[in-house]
Amino acid sequence: MALDRLMEAIRKKDNPTVAGLDPRLEYLPEYIKQEAFREWGETLEGAAAAILRFNQELIDALCDIVPAVKPQAAYYELFGWPGMRALCETIAYAHAKGLFVITDGKRNDIGSTMEAYAAAHLGETMVADKACEAFGGDALTVNGYLGMDGIRPLLEVCRRHDRGLFVLVKTSNPSSGELQDLRLESGETIYRRMGALCETWGEQLPGKYGYSGVGAVVGATWPEQLTELRRVLPHTFFLVPGYGAQGGGASDVAGAFDSDGMGAVVNSSRALLCAWQKEGCPPEDFAGAARREALRMKEALASVR
Amino acid sequence: MALDRLMEAIRKKDNPTVAGLDPRLEYLPEYIKQEAFREWGETLEGAAAAILRFNQELIDALCDIVPAVKPQAAYYELFGWPGMRALCETIAYAHAKGLFVITDGKRNDIGSTMEAYAAAHLGETMVADKACEAFGGDALTVNGYLGMDGIRPLLEVCRRHDRGLFVLVKTSNPSSGELQDLRLESGETIYRRMGALCETWGEQLPGKYGYSGVGAVVGATWPEQLTELRRVLPHTFFLVPGYGAQGGGASDVAGAFDSDGMGAVVNSSRALLCAWQKEGCPPEDFAGAARREALRMKEALASVR
Repeated sequence: MALDRLMEAIRKKDNPTVAGLDPRLEYLPEYIKQEAFREWGETLEGAAAAILRFNQELIDALCDIVPAVKPQAAYYELFGWPGMRALCETIAYAHAKGLFVITDGKRNDIGSTMEAYAAAHLGETMVADKACEAFGGDALTVNGYLGMDGIRPLLEVCRRHDRGLFVLVKTSNPSSGELQDLRLESGETIYRRMGALCETWGEQLPGKYGYSGVGAVVGATWPEQLTELRRVLPHTFFLVPGYGAQGGGASDVAGAFDSDGMGAVVNSSRALLCAWQKEGCPPEDFAGAARREALRMKEALASVR
Repeated sequence: MALDRLMEAIRKKDNPTVAGLDPRLEYLPEYIKQEAFREWGETLEGAAAAILRFNQELIDALCDIVPAVKPQAAYYELFGWPGMRALCETIAYAHAKGLFVITDGKRNDIGSTMEAYAAAHLGETMVADKACEAFGGDALTVNGYLGMDGIRPLLEVCRRHDRGLFVLVKTSNPSSGELQDLRLESGETIYRRMGALCETWGEQLPGKYGYSGVGAVVGATWPEQLTELRRVLPHTFFLVPGYGAQGGGASDVAGAFDSDGMGAVVNSSRALLCAWQKEGCPPEDFAGAARREALRMKEALASVR
């Protein structure tokens, strides 16, 4: 089961960090952009070439420290189809370096359409009799607002191809409570009901370490809810965004871990990608700065696990 | 305001139909696939070339009857970056034929990331000092589970670039009630609260025909809820999927329209795209069959508006 593979990688590297690959152009050193623009012009192709190189050098610098990367689909779609090609090539490069890849797409749709998303991001696309890989991630973030039949096709693909899911439960953004914190007639909050659905859906993808293949996204910016959800969702592994630049610190995510220090993987994007700007080091050392920041984060998380 | 443009097109063609471009390979005549595979092989590129040609011939046959098309992003992602290029080219072709384009992506994320989706699908991508169009739709479907700050960046892009939104409120799939029909402490259902949020968000994008630039997705498979929501959401234009192959008929969508026969656009995908299979006409006439089915649908909708 795919999240078992993620847990094994976390254990091996003793680090529950996922590096978020959200390559906004303003995060890239000028020289990388200029070299790409010289070859491709100031075009979507040029931007896509620049972000691919940025990602590859980051992956080289981080692959022996972090178990996983999380490319955020929006920052690739932003560059049109050349950006989507860079997403595909980033995933392949991360796999070649032994990393687990969580594609952060927050996809959602009705069942028949969700089959297409599942095949695209976690499975295979059949073209006549040939199976082709469209993107090839190991896990995908999804939005459960449509209920079970938007999730079922994913479970089947996950079982067949050894992949996993993370369902949005309590997101890291300030207005996440606008809907997610509303209370149902039963007194339960919506996020908690969504979490309960993860436990139910996960029964179909059992794992060997107590966690299922259906994880949940719970933001580092909501430490109380993290602790509450860890307690009531014993079989649901957490993907925790919002650490670092969004305001969550190590003590805020402490509640995400179980008594073995497992149960969650914590994402950091901007703090790693922009470490070179914060450090004020030479731009050529951007990947080294990301590595130093990743080591600081690993230590900080070790202190609370 | 973009949805004003859609309403004007509906009025001009006297037809509130949007043609869903969900080009699954099994919907395509064999000869189109074989010609593409001969040039590109049985590859993602070959599949993408086939679906682009299929879409273009459908658009040619439908563009004087229907006001809008709705490509479903999943069926393009399914073919990787070549599929996304076909999406981009389909949108450009539809625009060249004067059609309004609703990109059905159901995108959702936190504010800073939603800015990227908004730029990608409704606005412009800045590459150095150059503004590039990544996909270029006129409206985008989105999922509001993250609340206002996942919507705000879209409102700004919509205002600046004359584009619109459709927020998922009550989806057409069988399990949509699993979350959406739950009742809050206030007695209100979740879908109704999501609808109320559309009215609030829409105040920032007022239109000249009484409807705002923030529309709602409400399935044809839920006629009662359609009628209820039409009544309580007077400024929210509806995108109604689920007509035809999913089971909704003309009488089911009657409640979506206001007293002027406006207020909604009804999507049909499979019934149009597979009309040639149902008719049993020569495969070469697939676009003609789609046109005949679109005319039948126009008549059926006219009888209930």
